[in-house]
Amino acid sequence: MRTPGSRLRDAVLGAPQETERLRRLSLPRRQAMPVFGADGVSSLAYSPDEVVMVLALAGTAALSLAPWVGLLIAVTLLLVIGTYRYNLREVARSGGDFQVVSDRLGPRAGTAAGVSLLFDFVLTAAVSAAAASSYLVTLLPSLAGHRVGICLVIIAVLTAVHLRGIGLIGRLNPVPAYLFVLLVGVLVAVGLAQDAAGTLGPAPSADYGIQPGRQVESVVTGAGLALLVLRAFSSGAVGLTGVESVSNSARFFRRPRARGASQTLLAMGLVSAVFLVAVLHLVRATGAVVVMDPRQLVIDGATAPADLHQMPLLAQVSRAVFGDGLLGALVPIATVLVLLVAPAAAYSGFPVLASAMARRGYLPVHLNARLNRAVYANAVLLLGVAACLVVLAFGAQVNDLIQLYVLGVLFSMSLTQAAVIRTRHRSIRLVLDRLPRKRLIRDQLVTCVGFAATVLGLLIVLVTKLVQGAWVTVLVVVVGTWLCLRIKCHYERVDEELAVRENNPLKALPSRVHAMVVIPRLRLPALRALAYARASRPSSIEALVLNIDETRTHRIRALWDRYEVPVPLTILAAPFRDPVAPVVRHVRRFLKRSPRDVVVVYIPDYVVEHWWQALLHHRLSRRLVRALRREPGVITAVVPWRLGREDGQDVPDPTQTPRVVDGQAPGEPAASETTQTAEGQR
Amino acid sequence: MRTPGSRLRDAVLGAPQETERLRRLSLPRRQAMPVFGADGVSSLAYSPDEVVMVLALAGTAALSLAPWVGLLIAVTLLLVIGTYRYNLREVARSGGDFQVVSDRLGPRAGTAAGVSLLFDFVLTAAVSAAAASSYLVTLLPSLAGHRVGICLVIIAVLTAVHLRGIGLIGRLNPVPAYLFVLLVGVLVAVGLAQDAAGTLGPAPSADYGIQPGRQVESVVTGAGLALLVLRAFSSGAVGLTGVESVSNSARFFRRPRARGASQTLLAMGLVSAVFLVAVLHLVRATGAVVVMDPRQLVIDGATAPADLHQMPLLAQVSRAVFGDGLLGALVPIATVLVLLVAPAAAYSGFPVLASAMARRGYLPVHLNARLNRAVYANAVLLLGVAACLVVLAFGAQVNDLIQLYVLGVLFSMSLTQAAVIRTRHRSIRLVLDRLPRKRLIRDQLVTCVGFAATVLGLLIVLVTKLVQGAWVTVLVVVVGTWLCLRIKCHYERVDEELAVRENNPLKALPSRVHAMVVIPRLRLPALRALAYARASRPSSIEALVLNIDETRTHRIRALWDRYEVPVPLTILAAPFRDPVAPVVRHVRRFLKRSPRDVVVVYIPDYVVEHWWQALLHHRLSRRLVRALRREPGVITAVVPWRLGREDGQDVPDPTQTPRVVDGQAPGEPAASETTQTAEGQR
Repeated sequence: MRTPGSRLRDAVLGAPQETERLRRLSLPRRQAMPVFGADGVSSLAYSPDEVVMVLALAGTAALSLAPWVGLLIAVTLLLVIGTYRYNLREVARSGGDFQVVSDRLGPRAGTAAGVSLLFDFVLTAAVSAAAASSYLVTLLPSLAGHRVGICLVIIAVLTAVHLRGIGLIGRLNPVPAYLFVLLVGVLVAVGLAQDAAGTLGPAPSADYGIQPGRQVESVVTGAGLALLVLRAFSSGAVGLTGVESVSNSARFFRRPRARGASQTLLAMGLVSAVFLVAVLHLVRATGAVVVMDPRQLVIDGATAPADLHQMPLLAQVSRAVFGDGLLGALVPIATVLVLLVAPAAAYSGFPVLASAMARRGYLPVHLNARLNRAVYANAVLLLGVAACLVVLAFGAQVNDLIQLYVLGVLFSMSLTQAAVIRTRHRSIRLVLDRLPRKRLIRDQLVTCVGFAATVLGLLIVLVTKLVQGAWVTVLVVVVGTWLCLRIKCHYERVDEELAVRENNPLKALPSRVHAMVVIPRLRLPALRALAYARASRPSSIEALVLNIDETRTHRIRALWDRYEVPVPLTILAAPFRDPVAPVVRHVRRFLKRSPRDVVVVYIPDYVVEHWWQALLHHRLSRRLVRALRREPGVITAVVPWRLGREDGQDVPDPTQTPRVVDGQAPGEPAASETTQTAEGQR
Repeated sequence: MRTPGSRLRDAVLGAPQETERLRRLSLPRRQAMPVFGADGVSSLAYSPDEVVMVLALAGTAALSLAPWVGLLIAVTLLLVIGTYRYNLREVARSGGDFQVVSDRLGPRAGTAAGVSLLFDFVLTAAVSAAAASSYLVTLLPSLAGHRVGICLVIIAVLTAVHLRGIGLIGRLNPVPAYLFVLLVGVLVAVGLAQDAAGTLGPAPSADYGIQPGRQVESVVTGAGLALLVLRAFSSGAVGLTGVESVSNSARFFRRPRARGASQTLLAMGLVSAVFLVAVLHLVRATGAVVVMDPRQLVIDGATAPADLHQMPLLAQVSRAVFGDGLLGALVPIATVLVLLVAPAAAYSGFPVLASAMARRGYLPVHLNARLNRAVYANAVLLLGVAACLVVLAFGAQVNDLIQLYVLGVLFSMSLTQAAVIRTRHRSIRLVLDRLPRKRLIRDQLVTCVGFAATVLGLLIVLVTKLVQGAWVTVLVVVVGTWLCLRIKCHYERVDEELAVRENNPLKALPSRVHAMVVIPRLRLPALRALAYARASRPSSIEALVLNIDETRTHRIRALWDRYEVPVPLTILAAPFRDPVAPVVRHVRRFLKRSPRDVVVVYIPDYVVEHWWQALLHHRLSRRLVRALRREPGVITAVVPWRLGREDGQDVPDPTQTPRVVDGQAPGEPAASETTQTAEGQR
């Protein structure tokens, strides 16, 4: 079974893994925390930039609002996490958000939640790659102009690595994640100390001027300002992502699962919240700026070119605090590394969610096929391809991708919380003991607050981002949900059609089996097919010869006579030289006369030694099989001849009569260490 | 059988054609002459240019040699045609040059002749398209810069038209061919009259200066001049092509074939020879020039740009004789038309030759498969693709393509003449009658002269063109011949292996047939496979269940017990979830125990209603069939279930015992107007 093809497949997809081992696979908390927490923490690489970019639309003055917006986001994040921890037990018990929502709010809501989460995982991979490419260009400016290419390479490599499964990831990921938290911690501490001591230097972009963006020039007061803050909030809300991946990946935590996931959430939330506010404070203190359109910038009195690469804020702060040397480059390097490991949560969450949806019939079965690999390889590949397509469609600028990003997270979070509220509502009614009832009511209240927060966030994002690009997400979720429901519909119809029922109109076995043997040329494979057909002792048998070439047909008839083959020969007219249609017509005609019979068409087939030899032979057998599959009551039996590997010793004399063996003898029980036989009663 | 796919195929490839009609297909001489003669006559569109281009390398002075080189070519052409007519009977009798050479000089020489002719046909199509694009640009200067694209479109359209077969071509082609001969005849007559009267105007390029090409500056005398004339001759020798297509297309002439082909050759030769000399005379008289590299030209004291479009000479002469108006454009228009019909000979010769080579096993069988079309569609498509590749690789300049062209024609002509000489040599020995013997000796002498002429031409072309590009042709012929011989080798080995021999060690029929039914899930298709397997009354039977999902396996066992299915159930361990390998292993194990038995593996299969539904189902059956094909002694029987089109009425009760039918009853003779049954004796 070790063909070059399968060896290549093993090299790409990893070695086969036993089901039992995979079932027991889970990560200890010290590994799981960095693997699934990295997603949330790594958003520090781009969320400050998103806040500042929106505020910069209103000019330099508005930038002083940045830390306050950061605080708003941090509070929301902690609120969501604080309340989400109360959902974790429910979610982990069902398997994930999709299952919770499906079971409590119905399949439509569940599917919508699933689709938006899937799209979100795709964007996690795309955004992380885009941000990593931005930091890479900061470190190596000569790479500027190749950012889309860099993104595609990163996604390809990540996809290849994640095909190996979570075991490898668990060993790889902790280092960059802990390193990043450590280095940013040092950066923040040193930066704040310098700020207090008054020795904090200016950022590389501190002396850039900002021309206000055209559309907001006149609205910097009152309602305009509030809208701007809301927009900044909704952009910075990418800091909230990561929560959903932890809760969907609970199954990879070692038991007790909910507790491990909960602690991870808390740690991640605290680190992200504190760092976000601190970094935004340092941004204001160092005067660092980034803008959406570089042409807004005035450098040395001139407008900047449109393709200027802007250094991300975290890198700018690092330069300001540690200087331009190696020390200042450490944080950007750690950021690239953490951005490379951040999508691990998406890469493990996507296949788990996709397979859960496929298992329930909302996605193609292939996504639930682990074959003999460690992961649902089809789903991982799908994620990689989808992320590449997103980058190709929307570019490698984090700011462009972010517009699509937050909506799906907040949407699925809201649905999950609604589902949890509903479940608990029922529990509260049923539980009559005072103490547990009280605890349930408390949990319910917390979840309600969280629900309010995510719904509010969702509304803000919808209002401020719909035209910016969130419509793409809405479209994807709507169309995706519709497709999933259609798929479910198909599977249900098939299940309905194929189900075995007690009251099935069970009929007798087919009365007779008629064998037809296609004889393209009178050579050994044809003789073998003939012999095998006869050995199966059909009720009746005939050999089919297509009269494409008169000479050849005559030769077959002559040989037939000489060898005295005891099988009637039917010569089919083929005035158009088509070798398939006459056989199909013949079979149809036969079944019209004897509709209760079964026809078995025996087709001799070559198997070549080398792939290129396949180019030298007709594929008559495949064409026949394909055509006959569509005929009712027809079995196609392919009798292979392996070219160059058969001695022909087993080709039987077609003129002999088969030995009579008692009919319907049960097979000898096939016993070995890997099989067990259960004999049905008769 | 009318699927959308087959309807599309009919639209592209033409409607099915009966074999009998195709066999009788031939063209009356008034149609065949223009169809197959156009190739030779159309070379007038570019052969004068090739002569002048080479001479222009030595500067303006050498141009006066052009008519004399033309005369040399004309004489050679008439000599070759005069002698070739004596070969036609031999060639037409065997079918073509490939067969003649193969039978007389052995398979290697025959294959080499065949391959060089095939390559030559490809170049005929490419060169005609390139020349047509040049005349088109002359007529519509805005098309300049798109010549490669124009060539590809022309080749694509020609390929599509020629897929319809020679019948359509016979009706289409005569008009442009006769029109071209008529118009060029008028042009030559009027031009010569003007020349005699002294009223012949100058050509558009008459006042261009020519800087001698660098490499020949110093060799314009003695040996250098002789070499230049030889080079001009070998370039102009494209005028010789067309002879081989007529002789290879003899089968399309209405009987007597050799006579029709012979008259076509003579007419074509006379027209081409006279026109070539006359046009080259008019070129000298009008002062028209073309050069290989436009930068050789001096226009108004400045060097011309490298991408200058040079007007072909025939168009220049037409302008000089008829003026710049519509009258002067008539000849170029007729030239475009004749160049579009010229490749007809290649398009009919290539498939005939390729199929002849395929029939003898030197090319893949597909090239001999006419399926139900008018032509060997695969070969026509191959010609079109190859011509496109040649244009893409070597550009759309006639001068670049011509370097590859003549060699193959002269090579295959020489081989053919050698083969004819050899045959006749034997005949002369055997024939003792004085009169026929005398005639044979006369024919032999003529052929020897022709052979000498083509070998001399071949040597000249080899010496003068090898580095210019003819090495490509040599490479193609050598590699192509080697490949063809390898293919032949493969087919011979297969024939050897598969041949039915009297003294074959014929053995008894397989002693027992063991049926295995793969049960992926206990649904109706599986039950049907089970019932059909039982209806075929195997010696023994077992059902195979893969234990991929414990729950599902348990459910199948429970149902098995409940329905009391009288077939033993074998549960195969699948610790790696691979559904194929355990089945293959199980089959192998069985056959190791009972090597003389045959195993029939029944595989239930879905056939979906719409193609997109196929994306929603595993292709387990295909994967199993593919894997089991490679196992000796295994028949795979696919039992299809057509989703959405079955009522399940025929799914039999798997618990019933099959009715006993007498074994080995002969089938009822299947009689209808399209079948005839020949019952073998037993």
